[in-house]
Amino acid sequence: MEIKIMRNILDRNQNKANEVRDLLLLNKTMMVNLISSPGAGKTTLLERTCEALGEKFRIGVIEGDITTDRDARRLKKYNIPIVVINTEGGCHLDSHSISKVLDSFDLENLDVLFVENVGNLICPSQFDLGENFKIALVSTAEGDDKPGKYPMIFREAKAVLLNKTDLIPYTNFSIGFFRSDVQKINSRIPLFEISCTKGTGLSEWSSWIEAQIMVSRL
Amino acid sequence: MEIKIMRNILDRNQNKANEVRDLLLLNKTMMVNLISSPGAGKTTLLERTCEALGEKFRIGVIEGDITTDRDARRLKKYNIPIVVINTEGGCHLDSHSISKVLDSFDLENLDVLFVENVGNLICPSQFDLGENFKIALVSTAEGDDKPGKYPMIFREAKAVLLNKTDLIPYTNFSIGFFRSDVQKINSRIPLFEISCTKGTGLSEWSSWIEAQIMVSRL
Repeated sequence: MEIKIMRNILDRNQNKANEVRDLLLLNKTMMVNLISSPGAGKTTLLERTCEALGEKFRIGVIEGDITTDRDARRLKKYNIPIVVINTEGGCHLDSHSISKVLDSFDLENLDVLFVENVGNLICPSQFDLGENFKIALVSTAEGDDKPGKYPMIFREAKAVLLNKTDLIPYTNFSIGFFRSDVQKINSRIPLFEISCTKGTGLSEWSSWIEAQIMVSRL
Repeated sequence: MEIKIMRNILDRNQNKANEVRDLLLLNKTMMVNLISSPGAGKTTLLERTCEALGEKFRIGVIEGDITTDRDARRLKKYNIPIVVINTEGGCHLDSHSISKVLDSFDLENLDVLFVENVGNLICPSQFDLGENFKIALVSTAEGDDKPGKYPMIFREAKAVLLNKTDLIPYTNFSIGFFRSDVQKINSRIPLFEISCTKGTGLSEWSSWIEAQIMVSRL
């Protein structure tokens, strides 16, 4: 009974996600669904990405948050279109909430739309928002054992970003264990080792995103 | 329609939680529901707590994990009763899953039962497991802005533990901002500032838990 309800929710979500995807394709706007635990560094990653690609591409952001517009305010300085979705307790974004706010963007003049999902490593991985792909972001401070314990997002994502590599010397994080734990779940997924506060590893990430934008336009 | 379904789920959860609570009261076993994001340090906190209180009290643990028994294996060395609940994708424990495993414990000879919930700062805060109280654990690496952004657990918890204080010098975490953000939501909640890997601040936490066990027996 509960399983059937969940299936209905997911089916309705999938139908709307397909509509969103068609609309984005029509406008040649790439959408990226960014997923992580609370405080892994999604907003800081968007700050660095705006700085790296803001002159070359027209970027928009959807900020998914339970409450507050704290993250959106951090991105205001980049002078890009930003829409906040407050889920008011909801643990993930769904395609209906995305669909409702797409009108607020001038999609025809947008190259890439980043969706910062609610901070949650579990629930958002089950919901297609109509994105081109999902990104999994994890922080070294969360420990090297997270891929095996939260495998869904590592299966669903197109790339993994390991953030806060600058904290590794102060923790017992083993980069070798983490890499092998990711590979057991998704053997060919690209893994970017970055520090958004120190700026390391970010040029590889920017080049990769740039290539994805190019591919999405073919 | 969806709201009604959610209400039914919560009602059924509440009924079973009340049964669990009655059973624990009968056996004078205190149950603590430990909630945090992935990798904030729940298991390490339990390691330190077993070391501090293991001689004085009879401790048991329920390990809630989506998959794997990694956390349970870390606690094996304390020679305490441990039961793993794998939710197989589920984002929180509920009172039915707790009720099913209580038989595995000799409750009459157990002073305190710690439940390590699934790593998720959102969903577990909505589900009463029949515990005496919830504990919110956050890591400094998650940033000082989390209470305002994820207020539910800070409203529900009986105490807040701020872990990984040893990492503060390497981050932009402001302890003053964090404290005031917690107080805006829950002005009188105790806040323990700890480092489970360095061992700082833990004696205050142990004394507080000890006092709670005493109070629960009155």
